[in-house]
Parts: sequence; C-alpha cells; structure tokens
Amino acid sequence: MTAGKIMLVGIGPGSTEHMTARARAAIAEADTIIGYVTYIKLVADLIEGKEIVRKSMTEELDRAIEALERARQGKKVALISSGDAGVYGMAGPTFEVLFQAGWTPPVLDAHGVPEPGGIEVEVVPGASALNSCAARVGAPLTHDFCAISLSDLLTPWPTIARRLDAAAAADFVVALYNPKSGRRTRQIIEAQRLFLRHRSPDTPVAIVKSAYRRRETITFTTLATMAEADIGMLSTVLIGNSNTVVRHGLMVTPRGYANKYDVAGDGAAHAGERAGRSLSSGLEGWLEQLHHDHAAGASAQSLAQRHRLPLDYIDAALHQPLPATATASIPVEESPA
Amino acid sequence: MTAGKIMLVGIGPGSTEHMTARARAAIAEADTIIGYVTYIKLVADLIEGKEIVRKSMTEELDRAIEALERARQGKKVALISSGDAGVYGMAGPTFEVLFQAGWTPPVLDAHGVPEPGGIEVEVVPGASALNSCAARVGAPLTHDFCAISLSDLLTPWPTIARRLDAAAAADFVVALYNPKSGRRTRQIIEAQRLFLRHRSPDTPVAIVKSAYRRRETITFTTLATMAEADIGMLSTVLIGNSNTVVRHGLMVTPRGYANKYDVAGDGAAHAGERAGRSLSSGLEGWLEQLHHDHAAGASAQSLAQRHRLPLDYIDAALHQPLPATATASIPVEESPA
Repeated sequence: MTAGKIMLVGIGPGSTEHMTARARAAIAEADTIIGYVTYIKLVADLIEGKEIVRKSMTEELDRAIEALERARQGKKVALISSGDAGVYGMAGPTFEVLFQAGWTPPVLDAHGVPEPGGIEVEVVPGASALNSCAARVGAPLTHDFCAISLSDLLTPWPTIARRLDAAAAADFVVALYNPKSGRRTRQIIEAQRLFLRHRSPDTPVAIVKSAYRRRETITFTTLATMAEADIGMLSTVLIGNSNTVVRHGLMVTPRGYANKYDVAGDGAAHAGERAGRSLSSGLEGWLEQLHHDHAAGASAQSLAQRHRLPLDYIDAALHQPLPATATASIPVEESPA
Repeated sequence: MTAGKIMLVGIGPGSTEHMTARARAAIAEADTIIGYVTYIKLVADLIEGKEIVRKSMTEELDRAIEALERARQGKKVALISSGDAGVYGMAGPTFEVLFQAGWTPPVLDAHGVPEPGGIEVEVVPGASALNSCAARVGAPLTHDFCAISLSDLLTPWPTIARRLDAAAAADFVVALYNPKSGRRTRQIIEAQRLFLRHRSPDTPVAIVKSAYRRRETITFTTLATMAEADIGMLSTVLIGNSNTVVRHGLMVTPRGYANKYDVAGDGAAHAGERAGRSLSSGLEGWLEQLHHDHAAGASAQSLAQRHRLPLDYIDAALHQPLPATATASIPVEESPA
C-alpha cells in the first residue's frame, strides 16, 4: 500500500496568478481536496476528477480528521487554506489532530525519502492576507508588524486586548484578521479604543476586502473613524505606525532612511552617522550614551522613563561592560533588507 | 514612447517552486532586473537576455533610484526581493524614493488602464521568510504573531527594545528578522534578556537558515539557550508563545481548540461553551463577568490587575452598557480561519 500524505496548501489571495508552483502541483498531486467551499471554487480549474470534500468554516477539526482518515487509506490529501496555511490556516488544527491521534512523522531513509507506512505531512506556504493586502495598498509593512485576530471564538478577550494594547503602545504596524462579522461587531470598536490610548486619531488605516479577487475593495480611513467603515468577514484591517503615511492613494511606512540620510537632498549620511553602519542610536551607540548619561548623574529610573523601557532592563544595561568602541573601520556587510 | 513600469517582486524563499506565477511573469516581462546578487542567482533561469543590475545589500536607495531612472526611459523594471517585497523588502524604499522624486501614480482610464506617460508601480506579493520558515518547522504561527527586525542600521535600539518587550509581555509568537551578523552580535542577547523577563526559559525557539534552499538548516532550541545557537545573516528566529510546543521535531502553536472542546475525548464542547459561538471568555462573556464581578465588589483597580489590562480600559468597559445577552440561537457564521 502506498503511504498517504497530507498537504497543507496555502493558495495565496485566491487569484490563480498569486498561487505558487508548489501549491498548484500539490493540488494536482492530491487524490482528495478538502477545504472551505469558497477556497475550493478558487481552484476549480485544478480539481477535475478528484474527490472533493467541502466543509463549512466552523468545521476545522472535522476537516483535519477527515484528512487523516483519507491519508490512513493511502490517499494523498490536499487541505486548502486561503493565504498561508500556517497563518490562521489549517496547519495548526491539523497538527493538533495528528498529535492527538498519536501520529508521528515518518522515518526518513538515507536519501531523505519517508519509509513506507508513515503518513507524510507537508506545509506549502503562500502569501498570507497581510502580504496580499499590503501589496494592494502600497508598502505599509516595511517595518515591524503584528498580526492579531479579533475572533474570540477560541481566544479569551483579555488575551486579545492585551495584544492590541501592547502592539499599539510599541508602535507596530498591525494587521487585524477577522476584524468583524455579522454578529461580532463590538471587537473592532474595542480595538479602536485600545489603539487610541497610544496612537494619534490621524493614524492611517486601510481596509482591504477580497484582495486580488473580483470584488476587491480598498478603503483608506483613520484610527478615529475606522470602526464606522464597511468591514466584514473578508476584510483585513491594516493600521499604520506613527510614521505611516497615505499619499496619492498609497499607504507607505518609511523604513527609516531619513533617520540616517539626507533623503531629500544629496543622500549623504547625517552628521554622526555612517553609511552601512548601525545608527548612532543603534544598540552600541545607545549603550554608550546610556552609560554617559548615567555617569553624568541621570538615575536609572529617569533613564527608564526617558527611553520608555523597563527599569530592570536599564539596570542590566548599566551593569554590563560597554562593547568595544565601534570606531574602527570595519567592512560593511549588511542592510536591514 | 511606452510608459515605464516598476515591479516590486517578492520571489518567496528562493526555490523556483515557491515563487508565484505572477512573480515569474513579472520577471519575464521586465527589460531590466535589479536586485541583490544572491537573489538574482536564484532566478537565473528566467533572466537570459535581460539587462541585469546587481547591487550589494547596502544600496537599497540606489536600487530604487536606478529603477526610477530606467522606468523614466520607458523600461519595465523588476526589482527583486527575497520573500515578500513588502516585508523588509524593496517596496518601502522604492516608494520613499518615488515620492521624493515627485512621482504620482498614473491616472487610469475608464477601463482601468494607466494613461500614457505615467510610471506604473506594481507590488507582487510572495511568501515572506516568516511564512516559509514556519512551513518548514510545523505550524508555529497559527496564532497572533509579530515580525521584529533586530537591525539597528536605521532604527534606534530603544524602539526595537520596546517592541521586543511588548511582544514578549503580550505573548505573541515572534519572528526575528536580521537577528545577527558578523558585527552585530549583541542584539540577540539583548532580545533574549527582554524575553526572559516575561517568558519561560523553556519557551521553544526554532532557528531556520536558508529555508527551502540547498543549505537549509533547522535548529530547535529554547529561549534559555538561543543566543548560543548558530545564527547568521540568513537565519530567521521563531520564538513560540506560552502554548507553543515542539513535538516529534515539529513546532506547533495550538490554536486554542482545547479552550472550548474536549479535543482528547469526543470533541464535545466544554460545559458553558457552544460550537460556533464565541468562547464564554470572549468579549461578550468577559464583559458580563466584569460587570458581575464589579457589582459583587471588585474594584476597577483589582479587575485591571486580574486581567492585566489598563485601568482606564477597564473603567470604560464598566461604564458602557452590556451588549444584549447572547443566549438567543443565532446562526453560526464564522470560524477564526
């Protein structure tokens, strides 16, 4: 008997052209396709002649169990998620079910080929909603970002609220998944309230619905008014950080070149900065300055307040030896890309 | 003269099979390919006969300027990023340069076709390093996560440190980009220190180097020992949340089904929970409980401490009317997928 296989396939935003070659091949290779009906429709051209198991949105565990049953019969099963199978997709629930059922990964032979009998599992990555939505609005995710789901179907609200609060305070760009549904309408208002504690009401917000699909809509709004916007089950909400701008219908988060270079002028590094070297306020420069300010009389407490960092972290930084001064000419070797 | 075009192309992890059809088509369509040499090598099969502009890692702005110059000459230019062009990729710097140069998006005619003369810009999304690395280790990103770059080349260290602290405290899964380089070795130690203030030393950590490439390596470690691991310029560090486990060589963050269902038994919902409905500790249930506890004598202060949420947020929640009780039988309409 051939060994079964489970392939967790992320198909990207849902247009054929944004699917990877491996996602297409995995679907083509499968005997059985399992997924939410909307996603199966998106790959209709690939699935002729295969067994199709359509499942509704609320049957994630059922889908995973069904996949395991088929794989035990020696079938190759593709479990389809929109976006990336690993990001709020089927990869998590499937591994939960597999572990629960006592599954272990097949032993590989000397050539890396699974030994007979075991069920192989492959996760096929794709562009998640945050990647696709970002691409449609410009470049909002060029800097540190978070993904937070507002669905409290499985997650306690205080956990979600703490994450919203932390992300807002630390100036992350944030992608809200599952922001609102017909019944779940208050979560987005609570999210807005938590954000407004830390961020300007003018903070740019983009709401992207059905990116790259026929009914795509893109709306730009602000933190002040986002809760009144048209947001639904197929929307992703992108909230900018304190530097994000919307210009000419594009939402862009500057990477920070202006911290270091005269971007508007000749592109030369600002006084005290050097091309290809960490910013003067990078870790080494910051530690030096911290030690200097402390020696000049600033208390650890006041430094913690100034830098908005925990007191014990500042204390630890002050009690460690400074790194060797970084003034020697060391070859450039990196960029933040 | 044909209008020029700039295509910001994310090629995914760097194996041909994980590139999207649109990424391949964009490269095929281009007259000029601009990118970091390593990425250009990854698409060597696609670029025969085209002008190739190889740039080193530190010349991001130069690459963007060069792309604009070519596009002004009517050329179609593909600017290549590994992963997703919008996530620490070329999309950000390119829009910064374009805005600086006074570029505006071309006006579209009634059919959505750009009017002649303008330079069109297209961002082609792909699987970012966090998607690819997650797929290779199991399913670590099934729940809320952050991406944080440890590069202080353009970002002040206190900004990075505040984000690390916030992400650790709010129990996000975290993907660290640019964790370490030959010269930049202390950042990962500082990150570890900030995480250990909030997270168990046993927290699972995966270090993925060159995912899907020939020299791919995957290392599992823990928060306690991650700074001693072999981490380099091509590594992404995935730090689990408080529920993440490593089992049989797979890193998985449970989605939370166990909060609601008897996953090990017959799959029935726990007492007080209902399939397809928000958790009893979801927003509505939590608000009810909060009002109840307050009425029973718990101060807002003590409730803020209990739920680890800001006092003014608790105050606001207590001063708002409760949502209509959610005991009516409303049709199921969603899952967190």
